[in-house]
Amino acid sequence: MIYLDNSATTRPYEEVLSSFLTVSQEFFGNPSSLHQLGEKASSLLEKSREQAASILEVDREEILFTSGGTESNNLAIKGIARANRHRGNHIITTAVEHPSVYNAVLQLKDEGFDITILPVDRNGMIDTEYLKNALTQKTILVSIMHVNNEVGTVQPIKEAGAIIKEYSRAFFHVDHIQGFGKVPLNIRQAKIDLLSLSAHKFHGLKGTGLLFIKKGLLLREELAGGDQEAAKRSGTENVAGIVSMAKAMRMTVEQAHRIPALSALRQQLIKTLTSHKKVTLVSPMENGAPHIICVSVPGLRGEVIVQALQKESIYLSTTSACSSKKQTISRTIEAMACPSPTGKGSVRISFSLSTTAKEIEMLMEAWNRTILPLMEVIKSS
Amino acid sequence: MIYLDNSATTRPYEEVLSSFLTVSQEFFGNPSSLHQLGEKASSLLEKSREQAASILEVDREEILFTSGGTESNNLAIKGIARANRHRGNHIITTAVEHPSVYNAVLQLKDEGFDITILPVDRNGMIDTEYLKNALTQKTILVSIMHVNNEVGTVQPIKEAGAIIKEYSRAFFHVDHIQGFGKVPLNIRQAKIDLLSLSAHKFHGLKGTGLLFIKKGLLLREELAGGDQEAAKRSGTENVAGIVSMAKAMRMTVEQAHRIPALSALRQQLIKTLTSHKKVTLVSPMENGAPHIICVSVPGLRGEVIVQALQKESIYLSTTSACSSKKQTISRTIEAMACPSPTGKGSVRISFSLSTTAKEIEMLMEAWNRTILPLMEVIKSS
Repeated sequence: MIYLDNSATTRPYEEVLSSFLTVSQEFFGNPSSLHQLGEKASSLLEKSREQAASILEVDREEILFTSGGTESNNLAIKGIARANRHRGNHIITTAVEHPSVYNAVLQLKDEGFDITILPVDRNGMIDTEYLKNALTQKTILVSIMHVNNEVGTVQPIKEAGAIIKEYSRAFFHVDHIQGFGKVPLNIRQAKIDLLSLSAHKFHGLKGTGLLFIKKGLLLREELAGGDQEAAKRSGTENVAGIVSMAKAMRMTVEQAHRIPALSALRQQLIKTLTSHKKVTLVSPMENGAPHIICVSVPGLRGEVIVQALQKESIYLSTTSACSSKKQTISRTIEAMACPSPTGKGSVRISFSLSTTAKEIEMLMEAWNRTILPLMEVIKSS
Repeated sequence: MIYLDNSATTRPYEEVLSSFLTVSQEFFGNPSSLHQLGEKASSLLEKSREQAASILEVDREEILFTSGGTESNNLAIKGIARANRHRGNHIITTAVEHPSVYNAVLQLKDEGFDITILPVDRNGMIDTEYLKNALTQKTILVSIMHVNNEVGTVQPIKEAGAIIKEYSRAFFHVDHIQGFGKVPLNIRQAKIDLLSLSAHKFHGLKGTGLLFIKKGLLLREELAGGDQEAAKRSGTENVAGIVSMAKAMRMTVEQAHRIPALSALRQQLIKTLTSHKKVTLVSPMENGAPHIICVSVPGLRGEVIVQALQKESIYLSTTSACSSKKQTISRTIEAMACPSPTGKGSVRISFSLSTTAKEIEMLMEAWNRTILPLMEVIKSS
């Protein structure tokens, strides 16, 4: 099996699963319990918080554990907006955000917030001049993703952070879910106030994620209850999942030396694929994340390509997993103003840090064997 | 080790962990992915949904998976209130709810909803006449827990359901988190519209829960995003956790024959503990769940009892885990109008379905050895 759908989800590392098992069996206490079993669980939880903070180069009190990326994004956006409405009710985001950002912002629009959606160019990039002009004294939140999940565009987060802090009082949220471990980002240098991660995107477990929240920020908790996580996110902590996530973070950053190899693989694959005139590159040629390639074969539906390669035990996807069942053209690709046939024919190939040159070679062999003949029969329209 | 803090959390069944491991390793695909790995994950997810529905005797489309009890309670309450405000803005709950219900209702109060909190008697019981009188044409939601997490009071859910449906158009939410597997409850017969469960309370895994939502109910999603779970709860599904929860549900209901034995153990333990004049029963003598006993030794702090028994490898708690670190008298015990010294001295002993007579015997031996001497030195005040 060649698994190239790592932007949808990744296979958990064996060590991650083994940590999960150990903690679940031996340290199953509720971290809020006063007895030793509770204390042991609580101490593991805090150790994981320290590890996560240290990897992200922030303070431990700035790490909040959640049930995943969607919760992190929703909490960041709605938690900040609802707690800071007295400071203003204007929110800025982009046209290419993941639905867990985009739809959370739309919910706030229904609640009366003013929303500005930044457009993107053909490479999926925002224009920071546009951002600067959109900022007002009423802007309380700007949410911009680091790496786009469908095409891999890397946004100018550091530049955006500088502009936001110079020209407004807004908080800056970054969805770093696709970027972590693949495209370095320094939270402090980019002046980020909130940042979301999802463990199952870097070989951790589904159902676990985290949100960095800069010290001192006023955030309304979305899950009210027993006041866990410094009263910012109630609910019994998934200690085993959290310990596993910290382990997955560490294992991921330890493989950072693989990034240049991935970039090279990506460039080579783009070159080979687009050497055929019927293949269009949707991802940006420059400034793309090293692990995501979106190409299109106008005239051939994405599903057809996915199914054909699956017969060769190669797994990739049409745009994002989240929208793949909806069979509509992705909002991201529409925002990039690609012609409609391009959008319908797009497929996403997404690497993990362990993807090898051999696997990409086998992908190309399978592509030539199964997709090329299909391409031959496309009518020139 | 004798673990008697099962209302805080339970030890996961071995079979539950083994399911988790298998699914995480072999079926790690994203259920939204179009390829076979996604389809396999999606099929496991739907099989779990069918199993859960069958155990709860409801339809599969009525089961929604969440990250746990706190999320289920928050979603039920805020999701219903925010989607149905046009029908009215009055909500009724009780003084003894878990914080994940109580504080969610308080958030809605901040948003302008009218709230009625039903009082309870010395047994922690609501009065259904009071409920009837509190219902108005503007009541959109009534939330009543089935089994109280701190003292074990079992509320008259079926009677409440009948009254709510006869005298109002309100929806009926039941927090069944402590009751599942211990105190039978028929969702249809009790005319319940929404019901919350948390897997780690019945030997499933932390980070997993479910919400029953009656077909046709209008509910605003709290986690916006990729429209998973019929667009009522976005976020990549924790398939391995969900499969494990379905397994824990099945294993739990298969042990229902143990309930009478638990009830007998409870009665016996209450009798033995309260045979000492300095021990007060906080839980109701009659109408208490078979697995929860709350007793108090006025003059002796709950923490002291917990620490003393811990030295004998026996684990129990002061009231609930969620409030045990706050060192205040629990809201539940205050609502029951127990005298203050009773509240401060309370401890909770909570059984699992596997708790044995031998373990309770050892608890009593340890109690007599370590707590009795402490009780001797309490000043008669």
